[in-house]
Amino acid sequence: MTYTYKYQRPNLAVDCVVFGLDEEDLKIILIERDKEPYRGKWALPGGFVHIDESLEDAAKRELKEETGIQDVFLEQLYTFGEVDRDPRERVVAVAYYALVNLRDHTIQATTDSRNAAWFSVEDVPKLPFDHNRIVDVAHMRLKGKVTYAPIGFELLPKKFTLTQLQRMYEKILDRSIDKRNFRKRILGMGLLKELDEFQMDVAHRAARLYQFDEKKYRQLTEQGFIFEI
Amino acid sequence: MTYTYKYQRPNLAVDCVVFGLDEEDLKIILIERDKEPYRGKWALPGGFVHIDESLEDAAKRELKEETGIQDVFLEQLYTFGEVDRDPRERVVAVAYYALVNLRDHTIQATTDSRNAAWFSVEDVPKLPFDHNRIVDVAHMRLKGKVTYAPIGFELLPKKFTLTQLQRMYEKILDRSIDKRNFRKRILGMGLLKELDEFQMDVAHRAARLYQFDEKKYRQLTEQGFIFEI
Repeated sequence: MTYTYKYQRPNLAVDCVVFGLDEEDLKIILIERDKEPYRGKWALPGGFVHIDESLEDAAKRELKEETGIQDVFLEQLYTFGEVDRDPRERVVAVAYYALVNLRDHTIQATTDSRNAAWFSVEDVPKLPFDHNRIVDVAHMRLKGKVTYAPIGFELLPKKFTLTQLQRMYEKILDRSIDKRNFRKRILGMGLLKELDEFQMDVAHRAARLYQFDEKKYRQLTEQGFIFEI
Repeated sequence: MTYTYKYQRPNLAVDCVVFGLDEEDLKIILIERDKEPYRGKWALPGGFVHIDESLEDAAKRELKEETGIQDVFLEQLYTFGEVDRDPRERVVAVAYYALVNLRDHTIQATTDSRNAAWFSVEDVPKLPFDHNRIVDVAHMRLKGKVTYAPIGFELLPKKFTLTQLQRMYEKILDRSIDKRNFRKRILGMGLLKELDEFQMDVAHRAARLYQFDEKKYRQLTEQGFIFEI
């Protein structure tokens, strides 16, 4: 079966930038391509949009097929449509991004990829197509977002220390933050609930644990705010 | 000549939301469709992406062809890809938006449209496809943008009164703003240059004219800021 059109049509794809956080770094998930072109190279998970699925459904499907990750909130990032971005033919890519708690999502290579793995954002290899640019645009979007919206609900464990929260901001912003100033501002927002629990199994003095106040988090997400750090 | 593919492909289009401001209202430009479907209906300017042009070039070309408007800065808004958004077949639309000074751009219907005209944002008719939703998303983006970036350089005449500037914000935000508070904040930003010139030909007391400090405007556009009004 083939399909015939009067004019040439670009092929339409989706690509996903999924951010996760662990003790060391802000990371993104990459897959090892199982098909040409760039077979065996690390690239963003993604693929072609089926005629009967929405763009978001296509992104969810590809992410699940290639990494096993599902049930994440994908937000549209940008559509990349330069004429020569794919060596095969004209392909326009609608990029999505998501934040996930790295511990909650065991990743697995599946049918469409040989391998899937987390890479530090600071240490992303040279990727095929314009995937490095897509990663940069996603990271910039995330950097912008922390200044006007709460972030971390998806990235951090349910209970976390202020040091963990600060490290998340530092990793996203790619610079160090003044500790006193950070604590004053973040506590002043009323976004955190102080728990009567402390870290376990640490060599140093156990730090207090916090969790997000979900109602306030939602409210600030809708309203927006200013977080100058 | 026809083109054959192994899988069905969506058609790819661009649509443009162009905002302009006049004495009364925030407006957008619509065109009267010259082709089926919805022949004779008002709709957003736009059309199909050619195989050899970037998305942005396609948006610029369609805008020029259908309205005569050119030399505007188009910013990508969002890509609309619901399966059933076009009654003909699957069409994915990459939407762009722009701000223009309504006086600088005389619009004209050209080859691809019967007519082109400015419509008040508050008074947009029922549009075909999901064009009303695209307009809403563009207006929401604009509402968000005024809170973190300078705006008005493209919308206002070169020299303007504080009342004109305030009215622009009110039209974009769709609500009234306290005059004293507005003036204090906007003047506090250092964004405006006070001129030794006054309005001409007005019945009431002539108000002072201002213009944007271009260097500061660019700087604040890059940095972002917080404008709580």
